[in-house]
Amino acid sequence: MATLDAEDHSACGGAFRPTYAAPVTSTEPAAPTPRRRRGRPGYDQPAILRAAVELFNRKGYDATSVGDLARELGLTKPAIYHHVTSKEQLLGQALDDALDELTAAVTEASRERAGTTAYERLRAMVRRSVEVLVAHQPSVTLLLRVRGNSEVELAALERRRWLDDRLAALVADAVAEGALRDDVPPKLVSRLLFGMVNSLVEWYRADGAYDPATVADAIITIAFDGLARYEP
Amino acid sequence: MATLDAEDHSACGGAFRPTYAAPVTSTEPAAPTPRRRRGRPGYDQPAILRAAVELFNRKGYDATSVGDLARELGLTKPAIYHHVTSKEQLLGQALDDALDELTAAVTEASRERAGTTAYERLRAMVRRSVEVLVAHQPSVTLLLRVRGNSEVELAALERRRWLDDRLAALVADAVAEGALRDDVPPKLVSRLLFGMVNSLVEWYRADGAYDPATVADAIITIAFDGLARYEP
Repeated sequence: MATLDAEDHSACGGAFRPTYAAPVTSTEPAAPTPRRRRGRPGYDQPAILRAAVELFNRKGYDATSVGDLARELGLTKPAIYHHVTSKEQLLGQALDDALDELTAAVTEASRERAGTTAYERLRAMVRRSVEVLVAHQPSVTLLLRVRGNSEVELAALERRRWLDDRLAALVADAVAEGALRDDVPPKLVSRLLFGMVNSLVEWYRADGAYDPATVADAIITIAFDGLARYEP
Repeated sequence: MATLDAEDHSACGGAFRPTYAAPVTSTEPAAPTPRRRRGRPGYDQPAILRAAVELFNRKGYDATSVGDLARELGLTKPAIYHHVTSKEQLLGQALDDALDELTAAVTEASRERAGTTAYERLRAMVRRSVEVLVAHQPSVTLLLRVRGNSEVELAALERRRWLDDRLAALVADAVAEGALRDDVPPKLVSRLLFGMVNSLVEWYRADGAYDPATVADAIITIAFDGLARYEP
């Protein structure tokens, strides 16, 4: 892990994925007019969290130390500990970021209400999950790699299981109302459908060839209509 | 990482995923009749490789040391180094195991020949890739998590890119022959289709509810025919 010198700080900040939705809180008041900072830039807790998630995804969580994070940011370890209590706290915050967004989306999709079918809510859920994944790609990537090696990871896996169960129930509802074919088990459909969505984290780039709507349209077309062309 | 005592050796071996296709080579001659081993069981190179891949997947490659592997197997580090030259050698062998199988499958699917269409070869490739993934799940899991942190990893990513390019070309051929719809970019179709296949590594269990053929049928049904039921 190379130690970054002072000139590299802004480049380091620029290396974070631009798709990450930064929390809007800051420990510093906004400057009245833009001006060039001198010396070491300030890092607030959200900036440290972003850097930590990027490093966890690049090196693996277990292989990353607070010392690695300090070197990456050009800070001392005490400067890091001024903002965070532990590496695990950063992991927990990142996993909560992903899980809170996904939980909100699944809760909305699961809410039965007049004028919508389960099929419509399932299609909307696929679209929304692509949006969440793109907007929170680093923390969702981290979430999808969690193996259950600690209490924090086990708690995240427990929340993921709840999401998986709700999605499988939504698919089952869409089958029950006659909108979806019934010859593939709903739980298997749910795993494969959202497995296709989740696979985005491995290759999607915000500056790449496809915007989120194009990807969501493609997944919905493939999953619900299929790729095979039936000639009229 | 707990140090395993002598009684735990067989349990440790049993924890490896049963779906892993073990290389048939062995440094020890086969015993003429089965008999119960006494004391420390022998570990040959394939057994050490299987344990290493399981540990890399559980802890992350960068966080796993040869010392961790020795403790997991109840061996000394010199005993490990009697069989392997480095941790990276084990990584390279595991990645080659996955890549060799996938390359053989893609090469076969890409081979144009009389009496087959690109559409048929694409469907066969989906089925074959599920089989490879299930039979080599630990090494494919490791492959799919490679980030490019070393020469070995960069070489693996280069081979993965070749596979991705061939799969995208196969999809494009199936579109060109009129078998697949042409309103989703072939490269995006390829990423999503094989993203759905690859997502298996995260949840598929050989002792679970679905055999490989059921999973392959489900993927082929979803991707080519779609889930939506059109009432007659």
